Amino acid sequence: MKKLIVAVAALGTLAAASAADPKVAYPNGFRDWHHVKSMVINKGHPLYDAVGGIHHIYGNPKAIQGYKAGNKFADGSVIVFDLFEAVDKDNAIAEGARKAVVVMARDGKKFAATGGWGYEVFDAKTKKGTLDAKGAADCHACHTQMKDSGFVFSRLRD
Amino acid sequence: MKKLIVAVAALGTLAAASAADPKVAYPNGFRDWHHVKSMVINKGHPLYDAVGGIHHIYGNPKAIQGYKAGNKFADGSVIVFDLFEAVDKDNAIAEGARKAVVVMARDGKKFAATGGWGYEVFDAKTKKGTLDAKGAADCHACHTQMKDSGFVFSRLRD
Repeated sequence: MKKLIVAVAALGTLAAASAADPKVAYPNGFRDWHHVKSMVINKGHPLYDAVGGIHHIYGNPKAIQGYKAGNKFADGSVIVFDLFEAVDKDNAIAEGARKAVVVMARDGKKFAATGGWGYEVFDAKTKKGTLDAKGAADCHACHTQMKDSGFVFSRLRD
Repeated sequence: MKKLIVAVAALGTLAAASAADPKVAYPNGFRDWHHVKSMVINKGHPLYDAVGGIHHIYGNPKAIQGYKAGNKFADGSVIVFDLFEAVDKDNAIAEGARKAVVVMARDGKKFAATGGWGYEVFDAKTKKGTLDAKGAADCHACHTQMKDSGFVFSRLRD
């Protein structure tokens, strides 16, 4: 019995370690990164269920170099899609609660199967990764239409 | 007649010098500053005529210190309100052309008459100041309701 408890405890530890150690790391400090652009996605948009609300795109210094090079991103580039509830009231749309922190991180070797990009969706409160394999495949399937732009939809503007 | 022409030309030069040398300097490099928050102001909002569209707030390092201190801003703090057309199409709102770069800059001595803040609205293309004395007074009249928050509407969020 004691062995079983130890074994179950060990499995629990493994599962916790796996959840706490996603393929893509939480982008600590991203709120100080360069703000690339923003957008509001409303009801009726095909991506509303996935990412409805107001979002802001941020890039770390390597990603900003990549944008400036014409969307050619080197390993180490990280792009954040910071998603908030869009609160539409009194003829203005304000940011509500954060819904999620969505990330794409570049590592040509580690993520070779998905064009060199790893995808993750972090819970806004726990900062734990929540994306399963199917979700990651869905991300990449959509981003593949932007293959000629480094798999990235956004472009840097002034 | 020649004297009159010279005098008029001189006046023209003075006016041009004044327009080219606003009290508040253009915030060079502000797109690399910390992004504070964003909002969309739609038709029907009382500020639509003045600042309708999607805007992003940025603060220079001194301003960010001020936000973190509970909206207590030291001299040298600069806050930018970067305003774009809001292009509402296919159930999404995207950024259109930049409409203006609106700035408030802190100098307790220089702008003592307006709570220590100077205001300016820069043309998006020429980067020249366009705000007249009445416009600046209007800015400050509205911001005065936020006197207990350092005359600043925005607050820093995570």
